[in-house]
Amino acid sequence: MEITTETIQFSTKGYTDIIDVTTEVQAIVNKHGFTEGNATIFAIGSTGAITVVEYEPGLVKTDLPEFFEKIAPYRSHYAHHNTWGDDNGAAHVRASLVGSSFAVPFKDGQLLLGTWQQIIFVDFDTGPRNRKVVVQVVGVK
Amino acid sequence: MEITTETIQFSTKGYTDIIDVTTEVQAIVNKHGFTEGNATIFAIGSTGAITVVEYEPGLVKTDLPEFFEKIAPYRSHYAHHNTWGDDNGAAHVRASLVGSSFAVPFKDGQLLLGTWQQIIFVDFDTGPRNRKVVVQVVGVK
Amino acid sequence: MEITTETIQFSTKGYTDIIDVTTEVQAIVNKHGFTEGNATIFAIGSTGAITVVEYEPGLVKTDLPEFFEKIAPYRSHYAHHNTWGDDNGAAHVRASLVGSSFAVPFKDGQLLLGTWQQIIFVDFDTGPRNRKVVVQVVGVK
Repeated sequence: MEITTETIQFSTKGYTDIIDVTTEVQAIVNKHGFTEGNATIFAIGSTGAITVVEYEPGLVKTDLPEFFEKIAPYRSHYAHHNTWGDDNGAAHVRASLVGSSFAVPFKDGQLLLGTWQQIIFVDFDTGPRNRKVVVQVVGVK
Repeated sequence: MEITTETIQFSTKGYTDIIDVTTEVQAIVNKHGFTEGNATIFAIGSTGAITVVEYEPGLVKTDLPEFFEKIAPYRSHYAHHNTWGDDNGAAHVRASLVGSSFAVPFKDGQLLLGTWQQIIFVDFDTGPRNRKVVVQVVGVK
Repeated sequence: MEITTETIQFSTKGYTDIIDVTTEVQAIVNKHGFTEGNATIFAIGSTGAITVVEYEPGLVKTDLPEFFEKIAPYRSHYAHHNTWGDDNGAAHVRASLVGSSFAVPFKDGQLLLGTWQQIIFVDFDTGPRNRKVVVQVVGVK
């Protein structure tokens, strides 16, 4: 069993901006020659989350943003706004709900995802950000 | 440290059908003689999820289905339906929310679950399916 | 690669009581001399959950409790109450939603968390409890 820990970086627009990171995760598994194991994808920061979705525009651009807006609206008042003068209470609530850590198993060097199942980073914050996501692979080569 | 990756298969009815997979996960840990480590349970596909619950009929047949129907109703309109002519937008939203990956630690060959804490697969889709769930065990023997 | 499995214990008040366990997790990683790997934090029992949040009073005392009360109110009727005469149906629904397992990677002996990102145990139950949380570390020393 071996381990490697890398970081990927990208820019996000906020407001439930959804980024497909599947290709990057698969590439890190393959670059190091892992055959069987799992990749932990971890979003650094408390307003981003990691999960999976079928990455098509209907879900990514409309359905997921509308769902989160319904259950935790950006324009509601949050006590968090009083603490720091921030405006991103909804982002924190949503990120805690979805979670910032996600593990995907692989075998024969291939992530064991369904055909229409992509790994996504969700930026819930209220403005553009530069994001860092940890991809840690544990397995055999 | 060693690793094994297996797949379990079963049929589901959809509409937040909840299947207890605890016995299968425990059996895979024991079959290979692992004593200390963790099992990652991963649902292949973007309309199923993995979590834990006290597996009793009130929660499994009524409370969880009613909760998800309240926050992401099956009969609402989803942009996903326009993309493919599908009717399962609610299933995708729910699955992204709960997540398709879950890790359970074990020691002395026993999953470290509470007495009333079972590992479940939740099928959110809108019809019967044959499902594959990956059970990957990492640990010592 | 080596593994260690410990349990931390603490008292909780219930009703979405949120406990920061980051210091305990970091201490377990360091006590055993791990340098690179991940810690799986697992809540034993079906009414507690693990996630991350910026641990400040606005989010912890007000925003998260109010959010969960909105989507799964304690005083609603749950079929679970009929099964056991319990009153904690909301706690079970919330815990299944958030999830009781969470993995955090570390490198150079440091958890790869953001500055304002803490690991929390959330007690959703309806009264005081003594809680056990598993911290399992897998990595190299």
